[in-house]
This record gives sequence, C-alpha cells and structure tokens, in this order.
Amino acid sequence: MPTRHTQEDVLYDGGQYELTEDGRLPIPFQRTAKYQDGNTIDWLHEETLERERNHALESQAGVRGILLPALEAARMWFVVIVTGFGIGIAGAWLDVLVKWLGDLREGRCSYGFFYNSNACCSGLDPGEVCQEWQSWGNYFNIHSIFGHSLLQAFIYVVLAIAFAGSAALLVVTYAPHAFHTGIPEIKAILGGYVFDAFLTPWTLLIKALGLALAVASGLSLGKEGPLVHVACCMAYFLSQLFKEFRHNEAQKRRVLAAAAAAGVSVAFGSPLGGVLFGLEELDTFANESDVMWRGFVASAIAAVSLQWVNPFSTAKLVLFQVTFMSDSWRAFELIPWVTLGVIGGVLGSLLIRLNVEIALYRRNSVLGEWPVLEVVFASAVTAAVSYLIVFARVQTSELVANLFQECDPTKGDYHGLCNPTATVENVFLLCLTAILKIFLTAWTFGMMIPAGIFLPTIGIGACLGRAMGLITQSLYRAYPTAWIFLSCPPDPSVRCISPGFYAVIGASAMLGGVTRMTISLVVILFELTGALSHVLPIMICVMTSKWVGDAMGKDGIYSVWIAMRGYPWLPPVDYRDRGETGANLMKPLSQIIAIKEAVTTVGDLKGLLARHQFHGFPIVDKHGEFVGYATRLELIAALDRLQLDETEEELGKRCTFSQNRLRVPAEERVDLSNALEDSIIQLRKEVPQEQVVNMFQKLNLRQILFTHAGKLTGLVTKRDVVTLLTSHFPHTAALSQYPPHQRQP
Amino acid sequence: MPTRHTQEDVLYDGGQYELTEDGRLPIPFQRTAKYQDGNTIDWLHEETLERERNHALESQAGVRGILLPALEAARMWFVVIVTGFGIGIAGAWLDVLVKWLGDLREGRCSYGFFYNSNACCSGLDPGEVCQEWQSWGNYFNIHSIFGHSLLQAFIYVVLAIAFAGSAALLVVTYAPHAFHTGIPEIKAILGGYVFDAFLTPWTLLIKALGLALAVASGLSLGKEGPLVHVACCMAYFLSQLFKEFRHNEAQKRRVLAAAAAAGVSVAFGSPLGGVLFGLEELDTFANESDVMWRGFVASAIAAVSLQWVNPFSTAKLVLFQVTFMSDSWRAFELIPWVTLGVIGGVLGSLLIRLNVEIALYRRNSVLGEWPVLEVVFASAVTAAVSYLIVFARVQTSELVANLFQECDPTKGDYHGLCNPTATVENVFLLCLTAILKIFLTAWTFGMMIPAGIFLPTIGIGACLGRAMGLITQSLYRAYPTAWIFLSCPPDPSVRCISPGFYAVIGASAMLGGVTRMTISLVVILFELTGALSHVLPIMICVMTSKWVGDAMGKDGIYSVWIAMRGYPWLPPVDYRDRGETGANLMKPLSQIIAIKEAVTTVGDLKGLLARHQFHGFPIVDKHGEFVGYATRLELIAALDRLQLDETEEELGKRCTFSQNRLRVPAEERVDLSNALEDSIIQLRKEVPQEQVVNMFQKLNLRQILFTHAGKLTGLVTKRDVVTLLTSHFPHTAALSQYPPHQRQP
Repeated sequence: MPTRHTQEDVLYDGGQYELTEDGRLPIPFQRTAKYQDGNTIDWLHEETLERERNHALESQAGVRGILLPALEAARMWFVVIVTGFGIGIAGAWLDVLVKWLGDLREGRCSYGFFYNSNACCSGLDPGEVCQEWQSWGNYFNIHSIFGHSLLQAFIYVVLAIAFAGSAALLVVTYAPHAFHTGIPEIKAILGGYVFDAFLTPWTLLIKALGLALAVASGLSLGKEGPLVHVACCMAYFLSQLFKEFRHNEAQKRRVLAAAAAAGVSVAFGSPLGGVLFGLEELDTFANESDVMWRGFVASAIAAVSLQWVNPFSTAKLVLFQVTFMSDSWRAFELIPWVTLGVIGGVLGSLLIRLNVEIALYRRNSVLGEWPVLEVVFASAVTAAVSYLIVFARVQTSELVANLFQECDPTKGDYHGLCNPTATVENVFLLCLTAILKIFLTAWTFGMMIPAGIFLPTIGIGACLGRAMGLITQSLYRAYPTAWIFLSCPPDPSVRCISPGFYAVIGASAMLGGVTRMTISLVVILFELTGALSHVLPIMICVMTSKWVGDAMGKDGIYSVWIAMRGYPWLPPVDYRDRGETGANLMKPLSQIIAIKEAVTTVGDLKGLLARHQFHGFPIVDKHGEFVGYATRLELIAALDRLQLDETEEELGKRCTFSQNRLRVPAEERVDLSNALEDSIIQLRKEVPQEQVVNMFQKLNLRQILFTHAGKLTGLVTKRDVVTLLTSHFPHTAALSQYPPHQRQP
Repeated sequence: MPTRHTQEDVLYDGGQYELTEDGRLPIPFQRTAKYQDGNTIDWLHEETLERERNHALESQAGVRGILLPALEAARMWFVVIVTGFGIGIAGAWLDVLVKWLGDLREGRCSYGFFYNSNACCSGLDPGEVCQEWQSWGNYFNIHSIFGHSLLQAFIYVVLAIAFAGSAALLVVTYAPHAFHTGIPEIKAILGGYVFDAFLTPWTLLIKALGLALAVASGLSLGKEGPLVHVACCMAYFLSQLFKEFRHNEAQKRRVLAAAAAAGVSVAFGSPLGGVLFGLEELDTFANESDVMWRGFVASAIAAVSLQWVNPFSTAKLVLFQVTFMSDSWRAFELIPWVTLGVIGGVLGSLLIRLNVEIALYRRNSVLGEWPVLEVVFASAVTAAVSYLIVFARVQTSELVANLFQECDPTKGDYHGLCNPTATVENVFLLCLTAILKIFLTAWTFGMMIPAGIFLPTIGIGACLGRAMGLITQSLYRAYPTAWIFLSCPPDPSVRCISPGFYAVIGASAMLGGVTRMTISLVVILFELTGALSHVLPIMICVMTSKWVGDAMGKDGIYSVWIAMRGYPWLPPVDYRDRGETGANLMKPLSQIIAIKEAVTTVGDLKGLLARHQFHGFPIVDKHGEFVGYATRLELIAALDRLQLDETEEELGKRCTFSQNRLRVPAEERVDLSNALEDSIIQLRKEVPQEQVVNMFQKLNLRQILFTHAGKLTGLVTKRDVVTLLTSHFPHTAALSQYPPHQRQP
C-alpha cells in the first residue's frame, strides 16, 4: 500500500511521481508517470496524454490504424457494461443477504437455515398461516411468554451487536477506507483527487460484506452510498486490466462516473435517478456529453440485471410501490406539505450540524481510538432502544414501505397505524421515532462501518410526513365542513387525505434538507415510489426544503464531509466575489519559486527539484518576462534525457527553454524547451476573482498564471481556490489527518 | 425594427454598438452598450458588468445596501415566476382554442357556437347519445349520404386551408420570426447570439395565435417547440420592464433559460422533462446550478398553473395516460423493441435529410417567393390525403392517445384497431400513415407557419410501434407454444403482448432518431404516458435509436437547422482534433489588425475604428509584445472621455495602454489603459486544438489570444471555432440570408 500523505502534502499539490523502471519518459506510450494517493491530477496534462495516444493509434498503418482505435473504444464500453452488470448482480445478492441476516435476528426457518422468512413461507395458499418460520422462542421451545420475549430481545440485540461488531472489525482490520458512505471521496476522486487505496479489491470485498452486516444489524444506516462505492471499486478493478486506464487518470475517472450512476441505479432501483445523481451531485457530466451517455447505459444495464436476478420475485424495480386512492390532490394540502418542506430543511440542517459535532468529538476524544467498541456500543444502544419502539424495530426499508402505504381495510393494519382512534398515540410514536433516528443517524454516519445516509433520512422524513398526514386527516375528520376542506367531500368517511403520500412528501423534504439535491432527488423519489402523478407536490416540497436549508447553511452533508476530510474538491457553486480580483487570490511573483531562463544552471535546477515538491515551476527570463511553465515531472524527465554527467562543467550549463532567445553559446547551455507545458493559461491580474474560480471549476485546471505585458506577476493553484471556497466552513480539514489507529493499517 | 444583418456581419462578430444619447459610457450604471441583432454577446464582459453593478448596489450605505440587492434578486424571481404562471395559462387556453377550432372542421354545437364537442356533450348520463353536437351535414339538413359526406369533406378541407392560410398570412405579414419551431433560435440565443427581433411581443402574439390555427388546420406539426418560443417571448417581455435585464444580456439569458424549461413543461405536461430538456438540449444549465434551480421552479409553477386551469377537466398532467395490463415485460420483447430502435434511428436520420433537402429546394426555387401559397397548398394536400386515411384524419394528438391505449373490450374499438382478424389491414394502414406523415412532416417543418416537430414524430413512431406490436401479437397468437413465447401463457386468449406499449416504444425510437436527445426524452416520455414501470425498455430503445442515428450523421434536427441558418452556436460536442494545435486554428499575427502601443496615434486609431468592424483589437508594443486587448466599444468610449479636438496636434498624440512603459513624453501621448479588458485569456499556440475548442464551449468565450514568450502570435474568435465545428455539414449557412420576401418585412 502506498504511503499516506498528510493534508499538507495534499494541499501543496505535492507531486511525488514515480518514473518508470529506467527512470525515463520517452514517447507517449511510455509517459506513464504515476500519481500517488494524495495528488491531484492535472486534467489538461492527462487529456494531452490521451490525445497523443489516440493519434499514435490512428496513425498506425493499414488495418491496425482502424482496429486499434476501435479496440480502444471497445475497452471503455466493456468496462462500463461489465460494471453495470456486476453491480446489478451484486446489489441483488446483497439484498438477499441482508434480508436473511435481518430475519435471523427474529427466528429461523424450520426446514432450512438459509431461507429468509419470505422464502420460508412461500408457496402457501392465501389465508394459510406460515408454520415453517419459527421465532427463536418457539425454536428453543420456550413457552413462558416472559421467557419467550426475553429470549427474542436478547437474541435480537446480541445478533445486532455481532453483525455490527464484525463489520467494524473487518473494516478496521482489512480496509479502513471501506467505512462511511464513500460518496464524498468519490466526488473528490471524480474531481481529480488521486486516492487509489480507496478503490482496491480489498475495499470492494470488505465494503460489500461489511455493508450487508451493517444493514442487517439494524443500525441507522442505508446501503445507497456504499453501493456507489462498491460500483466504483468494481469499475476500478476492471479498468486496471487495461493499460489504457492504468496510465490515464482522466479515462479512469470517466469510467468511474458511469459506475457511480450504475451504483445509484441499483441502490434505488432508479436508472434515471442514477444518471441524474451523477449529473447533479457528482457534477461529472457537466463536462462531457459522452460521459452522460455512458452513465445512461451503465445505469440501464445495472437496472436490467437487478431486475433479471429479481431477488424478491416481485419483478419490480420500484422499491416502495405507492398506490394512491386518487390521482389528484387538493390545493389546501399545500399548506401541510410546505410546512413539511420547512421542517425538512430545518431538521436536515440540524442533522448535518449534529453529525459534524459528533464527528469532531469522535476525532478529538478517546472515542476515536476504539472504533470497534464504539460500533458495538452504538449497535447495542440502537438495538435496545429500537426494540422498545415498535416502528423502529423493523428494518428501516420495511418501515418506510409501510409508512408509504395507504390504509387499506383489505390489507393488514401496520401496528395500528390506521386506527382512527389512536391518532394521538401514533403521531407521538412517529415523532419519537423520527427524533430517535435523527440522533442515531447523526451518530452512526461516520463510525468505522459502511453506512449510507439516504435510507435513514427517508425513514425520518417518512415518520414526520405520516405524522403530518395523520394530523391533517384527523383535523378533516373533526371539521369536515370547514371552509379549508371545501374541496373534500363533506362526508369524512370518504377518503380525502392520503397520509401515505404525506410520508413520501416528508421523505423528500428531509432528503432535500440533508443532501441539497433537487432534480435527481425528485426523480429518485418518484422512481422509488411510482408516484408520477404527484411529481408536482414533491417538487414544491424539495424546493421549499432546499430554500430553508440553504438559509441555514449552504452545504449539503457530502460537501461538509469533503471539507472536513480536506479533499481538494471544487464545489460547483456560483461563487461571487466582493470586488476582489485575481491579484487578491494569486501568490505574487516574490513568493514563487521560478526557474530563470538562461540563468538557472543544471545544478541549480537539480537542487530546486530536490528541495521543492511543487507540481511545477514557471520559467521567466532575466527581465521577469514569462517564458513558460514546466511540471516537475517533465523537468526531471528532460534532464534525464540529456544524460549529463555530474561534472562541474555539466552542472554549470545554463537551462534555456525558449527557442527565440538563444543568446547563450551552444556549449554553455542545455535545451529544455520540450519540457514546457503546452496548455498553460495566462490571465491579467485585473481579472475578477469569480472568473478565475469559474475557470478552475469548468476547466478542471491545476494552475493559472498571471502575466502583465509579458511579465509574470503571479500564480494561482487549485489549492488556493479550494481554500477560498471552503473558507466559510469552520471545520475545514478537521478530519484530514488519519486517526492514530488508522495510521498503519 | 432594427436592421437585419447578413451572415457576413454575424460571422464577423461585427460590433455595431449604440452608445447612450450623450455618446459616453461613464461608470457601471451607464455602461449600457447595446448589442444589435446579429451580434454575439461577450459573456465575460457582461458578467463583469453585472458584477460591477452588484458591487455598486451592495456598497450603498445603510438599508439601501441590503434592500437594493434583495430587490435585484426579487426581480429575477418575479420574471421567472410570472413567466411560469403565464405560459401555464397560455398553454391551457391554447389547448382550448385548438380543440374548438379542430372540432369546428367537423361540426358545431347546436346550443352555442363556441362550445367544442366535449363541452357540448358534457353532462350526459352514461350511455346516452350526444344529440347536441351536429355534424355540418346535419346542421345544413342534408340527408343524402353522398351529399352529407361530400359536404363534410369539403368543409373539412376548406377550413383546414383557411386556418393554415391565415396563420401563414399572419406570420408573413406581421412576424416573420414566428415561423418554424423556434428551438434552434433559442439554442443560439441562449448560447450568446443576439436576436431580439425574435422575442418581440408581436412575435409572441402571432406565434401563439398562428400556432392555434396551424395545429387546428391538421397540418403535420406540433405545438411543443413553438410553446417554448412563446414562453421565451413572455420572459423577454417581462424582463424588458426592468433596467437590470435590458442592460445585461447575460441576465436576460438566464431568465430565458428558465422560461424555456417552463415552455416544455407546459407543452408536454412534463415539469421534470422541462428541466432536463433545458439541461440536455439547450445546454444552458451546465454552466450554473442557479440556472437549473430557476428552471426547476419555473417548470413547476407552469405545470401547477396548467393543472389549475385544467382545460379539459381531467385534472391530469399526463397527456396520454397509458394503462398497461401488466407491470412486467418479457425478455423476448426486446427483439421487436430493439428493432424499433433501429428503425427509429434510420427513419429519423432520413427525416432530417429529407427536411434539409426540402428546405434547400424551397430556398433555391420559386417556392420560396410564395410562402403563403405553399402553406395553402400543403394544407390542402394534407387535408385531402388525411381525410382518406382513417388514422390520419384526426388530430395527431388524438391518434397518438388512441395508439398508446391498450385494447379494452369495455371501451370502444378505435377504428377497428383491436379487431384480431384485421391485423394485416391495420399494419398496412399504420405503415401507410407513418410513411405519409414522414413526407408531410419533412415538408411542413420549415414552412412559414409555427410548427413543432415533436408531436408528428411521436405520431410516426406510434404508428410504426403499434404496427410492430400487432405483428408480434399475431405471431404469438399463431404460434403460442413456440419456444420464444415460452414466458407467455400458452393460451393466446390471455394477454401477453401489449401493442399500446409498443407504440410508446416506437415513439421513443423515432424521437431519439430525430432529436438525438437521451435523458430528457426518456423523462418526457414517461411523464407523458405515466409508464414508469416500463422506463427500462424506453431507455434501451432510445439508446439503440441514438446509436444507429449517430452512425448515419451526428446532428439532430435542431443542430442541422442551426447550421443551415448559420447561427454562431457552439455545439456541445466532444471535439477531438487529429493532432492540430491552436496554431492551425488561429489567425496569425500577420492577418490581425492590432493597435501599436505608443506608435498608433489617435488619428490612426480613429481611422482603424471607422474602417474595421471587429469586436475588438489586440494591443502590442513595437517589439510585438502583447500589451492587452480592448473592445471597439471601450476604445470609442475611452477616446470620447478624452474630449480631444480634431486638431492635427491632438490627432497626432500617441496612444499608450501600459502604465509600465511610459517612454513617451506626457504631452505627446494619451492614456487609454482603462480601455483594456480585464478578462483576456492567453494561451501558447502549441496548445491542442481540442482544448481551445473546449475552452470556448465551457467558458462561452469570444476570443482567445495566443502569445509566445510575451509576444502576440495569433487570435482565435468564436467564429473560427464555429466554422471548425460545422465544417462537416455540407449546407452550413445555406439559409442564413433572408429570402427576398422577408428582406423588408
């Protein structure tokens, strides 16, 4: 495993590159300069590499000139398609595993240990009671009610602890990067951060396995984010099979973007949502339409393979099928819905803050040194508390499915939720569940265990929404003829308010508040529920929630974690300066280590390269006029190509870069002009700061140089821009250092 | 109406600006340089203006410093919200008008001329026959069947001609820009093209009225694109109320982007589709998340107001509600569906080519001089031919609604479509209708009449899809036990194949082939049909269709029209060069008119500005070193500020721009340094061409300068990049000149 870098390295864009074995970088195919974890890739440089490679392929004589480029494209599609297929299958089997482990906490199948409760009881006639699924009490033949309950609770809690503990142990021991959701890291990686250790096959395995255990343990977490991580690990693994991807970080990221879309597609059974998630949250497709297209294909294939495996024999992608009694909704309902939007925005922001505080406390207290114990303790608390509250006892996904369901007399009543005489109790219980889940989620999201935030957030929102629905319904039942309910039939026994849909709205509001997504959220939600006719209320509610949330703090939970981890990621925000120009942002000439054309000697240059780990150096002539920019890597390679001896004479030769100004006698100089970067952007320092930021965001730049009338005046790196954009967040880079127990994994 | 510009002007970025009355441009608020139609806006310049304006507002003392910026934001939201509301209402009333006009071709309501057939027959008990709606034959008391039919056909054709003719007359006489779909122009405008004549209130009025007439005439056209145009006209009209938008072209475009999303939202009843259309097809939101957000809001509000007006009392946004018998589909169905995708891709490409050929023929033949006659003739042919073919006789939207519908014995059989013994006849009739509609659509799309391409394309695709569905169904009925149908029940009387859904698939395929959209198309289609459970087949089919279509030519119909009209629009394609660098693309120094620092005199400069209409001029010193870049406008303003006399002494003063190099005595020079642009990008000419193109696409640049070691080497303008990107299309700018009858409207 490569050495870990401290934040300081990362921020300094420290370019510790490895050359190939013979220490050279000849022609395109061999220009395999490798980044190490903690670097930020140079997109323009990578693009140039790819371009050179493509031209080399196309210029091959005869059939090879046609076949090789086609093969190149085929490789990309191979990785995209196989990843989509793989994550579809993996997602399906993960579901099966989770269902079985989850059921195991309550009982076992009499005729086979490896059947889950549904499989065990399948094939029964309607109305027949399932005898084959035995609770542990029955299995151990305990007949006293008290003893039975105690045993059930005991096994429930013990298995929860065992699952969570083993997941944490796996993560801590084998793949520390498999903890958490993974989405912040993937956002950073797609933005150019190099973090290969995050995508190893080990991480893939541990994350998938740990995720199943973690979800089954009943902790307040979801599988959505981690599945995206798993998909990216798969794509990375596949892409490593081809030299093309191993040697090109930009290409690798294109594949990862498609994989991320496929991951979301499987996690939610939402192929369109996957593409839009990639578009909005990962901000990957804004740059290239081909990437969007590939995400579209990967997403579709992943969904098809999920549906093909069909883990629960429902042949449905829609996870929480919602059946509304009516297709229409009434204008007065906008009042509770907008209220839910406001509540979602406020509670979402609070959840983010709480999560940040807990994460900081964990890092700065003794808690951080005992990650497995923390998980065990958390799962014990979660299991114990959840067992007491009826709505919290089941898997969150089951709870959500039931909360989204309308009351239907022909079907069973879920824990008395449809009992009109128990409205007050239900509302109290739902709110209690929501508050409990907020605290548990804020605690769980960040422990050393794979954990997504989507499902718990949906759960919290669904509880609140259903409570709001029950309140509205009981108001309507109490005053059916009030003017506000005029659009409803005056007979309260006729259904007018659908509390199940209120739960959907609540979930959207809460998700909006926590993630600050808009379009992709709406698409995911109605792909999740099938509530197409109600897309407008969902949109309005997400709008409200985002507005309110933004007023309480601009960043969603992923941005906050990126900032805390200190990844060099540029948020795609509309940055507006207050009159500052590039001059305020740039490092002025006096602070820049520059190479002096025809003055710096080979010896000086070697010293410079040894002393400073900067990504590259600008070159100026003796009047301060800008000549060009060369990366550290290319300078090393260029020096290497010259095969200079270490004699004083050789070391004293002066470096020249510009063909125009060969004022130095040929025997006293070395020509390094081929080390100059082709793609270097120069600006005037009077340019508004917001335009500088904008260029970094849109072009994925690593540096911009400032010149004035030909003279170099300053330099801005991605680091400076990231610092600028995260300056409003007080805990930037608070978690960037690895905690002690993770230092030597 | 401002003077029209020839293509040459446009391509030359000719900057004929108007100064304010006193001919000056003092401080930000007064920097109201106005572009004229045919210019391309300078985004960076506009952004800078907005930035200065915002800072001026924020720096106001006290409450004004808080209130004014808030008011500024409120204005933007006002325009967005009112536009959304307005287009929702307008769309609803347009529907009502079209329905009435369309019904008028077949008969009238006995108790009121202004009732359409549905309104006339409302309030009947189920089973009761509507007596109130009278066909013209009954109204005129013609009892002979032959005379009755003849009269019906006569009135049908005559009214169609009258509607289409008056629409064409309105367009030709009052608002020539109201012809066609409008989407190519809006794409160009959103990309920075200035075309205010396209968005006038007159155009708004004529386009809306003409659209209703055109749709009612039964010509093969849709209302979708024109509605987007109408929405943009509304937003433009509203934005003109505020100085903020009048004086800032970038702000204006942000509002227009939201309006376009609202337009699509209303046209399809598809609020999410609207946002995604803006994202994918108009390529507007890639740049700023705020724009996407505003589009989201406008789109939602438009849909809410459409639903609120509720033109047909269905309270549904979903236009073509599809009710499938089953939620699942079978793997073997992918064979006909992928075949449909291929057919859609091929026919879509053919439709585009045919349309181009007809447009070129129209322009180059005598046809172009008689636009109204052409429309009259086309509508006569369309009406006559359509009256003969039963599926073509009704409005396309009605046809599509019926083709999407599954056969249901409890409902009526639409023209024998569900008759299992008439499969061959139905397939023949459907294919005939599709072929007929391809020709009619290719002819109609481009006549002097408002015309969208979406609905006819859906109609063609639905016919083909339904035909394919019928073929598959009859195969299944013939060989119910064949291995390929194993997943279906062996009893052919049980429903297994849903021909209605095949029609949806066919429509997606055809739309994919014609427009080359992907994501937004899928979203629009399932918002249109409610076919959420079948999103995967739709995705697969759109994928296939786009792949096949792209193989036959990369451009969708809108791109083709943009190229033919010669708008300076940069397609958001992934351009890949073949090894060329910026040096191949740039205009070299020898061909550039540059201002020479401390050499060019005031007189020279004035001459330069009078002779050349370039957008701006680079400034170099006597060694060729690059000093800066100044727009024509700013140079004029700077000269103006100096208030020089026209004496020889004054005219002989030399212009200096750089504060560093004041080697000219103060009395012999004038300082024009404040005319320099702040935001000028410099590159090395070795930069790969694809990166230059990429920068133009992503940063909306107007020019890039090339320097080498401080010396100016060349210049690339947007024009050069557009020329490069459209060079593969043989008919570029073929329609850019206005035809003779349009020259003096």
